[in-house]
Amino acid sequence: MNSATSSAAFAVTLGDVQQAHERIRSHIVRTPLLESASLNELAGARILVKAESLQQAGAFKFRGAVNRLLQLSDAQKRAGVVAFSSGNHALATSLVARKLGIPASIIMPADAPRAKIEGARANGAEVVLYDRQKDDREAIGAEIAGRTGAVIVPPYDDPDIMAGQGTVGLEIIEQARDMGATLDAVIAASSGGGLVAGVATAVKSLSPSTAVYAGEPEGFDELARSLASGQPESNAPGATSICDALQVVRPGKLTFPINLHLLAGSLVVSDDDVRRAMKAAYQHLRLVVEPGGAVPLAAVLARKLDLADKTVAVVLSGGNVDTSVFIEALNA
Amino acid sequence: MNSATSSAAFAVTLGDVQQAHERIRSHIVRTPLLESASLNELAGARILVKAESLQQAGAFKFRGAVNRLLQLSDAQKRAGVVAFSSGNHALATSLVARKLGIPASIIMPADAPRAKIEGARANGAEVVLYDRQKDDREAIGAEIAGRTGAVIVPPYDDPDIMAGQGTVGLEIIEQARDMGATLDAVIAASSGGGLVAGVATAVKSLSPSTAVYAGEPEGFDELARSLASGQPESNAPGATSICDALQVVRPGKLTFPINLHLLAGSLVVSDDDVRRAMKAAYQHLRLVVEPGGAVPLAAVLARKLDLADKTVAVVLSGGNVDTSVFIEALNA
Repeated sequence: MNSATSSAAFAVTLGDVQQAHERIRSHIVRTPLLESASLNELAGARILVKAESLQQAGAFKFRGAVNRLLQLSDAQKRAGVVAFSSGNHALATSLVARKLGIPASIIMPADAPRAKIEGARANGAEVVLYDRQKDDREAIGAEIAGRTGAVIVPPYDDPDIMAGQGTVGLEIIEQARDMGATLDAVIAASSGGGLVAGVATAVKSLSPSTAVYAGEPEGFDELARSLASGQPESNAPGATSICDALQVVRPGKLTFPINLHLLAGSLVVSDDDVRRAMKAAYQHLRLVVEPGGAVPLAAVLARKLDLADKTVAVVLSGGNVDTSVFIEALNA
Repeated sequence: MNSATSSAAFAVTLGDVQQAHERIRSHIVRTPLLESASLNELAGARILVKAESLQQAGAFKFRGAVNRLLQLSDAQKRAGVVAFSSGNHALATSLVARKLGIPASIIMPADAPRAKIEGARANGAEVVLYDRQKDDREAIGAEIAGRTGAVIVPPYDDPDIMAGQGTVGLEIIEQARDMGATLDAVIAASSGGGLVAGVATAVKSLSPSTAVYAGEPEGFDELARSLASGQPESNAPGATSICDALQVVRPGKLTFPINLHLLAGSLVVSDDDVRRAMKAAYQHLRLVVEPGGAVPLAAVLARKLDLADKTVAVVLSGGNVDTSVFIEALNA
């Protein structure tokens, strides 16, 4: 497929990502692209780490949320926003809403990490908990939106959200250039696929020879299987994973066509791979990373790709982890 | 005292710090100046956090070491360097030496954190351990230097080291300006006093109305007492502190005149204050900070200054902590 002709059909383009970056630049942290000599040695590759755990609200999700909310009309801002999220999109949307003076309702699974539920409440949002097995979070969101006139802010299937997340990729390209590094690969975690679709849009446009991979946990590898079959595949119910942030049923409607077109594949890791990566990020980079955020580093350290003597950028996408889970990883 | 006339007597000037920044810019991480809404709320002040725990080798010490080693002659580089350090200066000097291909001997106390001793060895340095109570580390260093011709790289009493550490202050001023923040105060930890002297040199030159404070742990508050008396005071032997990085006997010879001239004071915190600050940095910023590096944040959270509605920058100066100490702080 020729990307120059076919990309017009996609929800997001490089131009959208660049415009989003201009729009959100003064609101976000330009997170550093870190390197550790000892981590490189451990991996047998040059690893550049995009520390989105240092982003506002502790995850890349702030980028998409601020890009979306800055574009609401004054009337929409008064009516408020409603978001459904397993955690990081909740924290991001509630923090952006608070900064912009917008009322926010957040619909979260009752089994989300306490740190995330409490964080959304601390940001002044009204938190509505639902049962992941029984309730339909989208129906709850539609009910609130219908009653209050609030705007629904989806976690990934939205062009402005995807463009905001893509700014991670834009910065990686700029920062790697400043470091004199040529990127052989970039890896970002995928749940609904908004982050990796946005990152791939930026990276493949600006550095076509760089391969972009998703990373997923075992049991929630719908994107790996969908990329293999060429059509959206679902996860079997009942799977569990330490990666609370990466649990969707099927790929996003807007994100999947982009990911199918641009990704070189999706790398699947185990919970133990993830714990080892969380410990490595702590030891070598002094970063607190949550399980889902550690998946790309886990893929590199578990040698899911042959990266010998190559340069890879990994997105550490978030750092909102319950302390017991974090300590368990340090003791692993 | 008039700083314009008297500063000529000091070991370091703003010009030295600016030149150091140009020299080391491509070697260091421009660490982010982070802000957290929830941390601000906890402190009742606006806190901007300079995350030097993300610096190469996990502490600000890399800045001074690279500024010094880049200026060695080729003959000096062949003869190698020797450094004495309780840890972070050891890690920094050994990493810079490795990157520049210079042999390094590092003299460390036998009771230094294991993470620091192992890190210096992993960087390829020859580590010589000594007994903090019995041995004279400077004599050991002089012996090695005399035998091998190696250049001694002191931890703080050296103009190039102090100028390198001062680049932290330069970046804080630039980054605060980019954020639209006016700094009422800046706080940096003090052991030998090189960091805070360099930071004060930059900050007081570029923003004279900003007050610069040192931070010290109880039992090792020699600078607080020296500033009060106007002359170098020593710590009583036998004190203990969780802050392994901040244990000197008396203020530095070159650093103290600068600190006496430029600092508004030194804020003294307890081990419990430090543990609470380490936990706050973990919870609100997802940063791993070592005890000594958490002292300035501890001073703010323990309300050692009246900062109500003011803006303060704190340097989190390092993140090299043994896991047991870190977990103890998270459980505090």
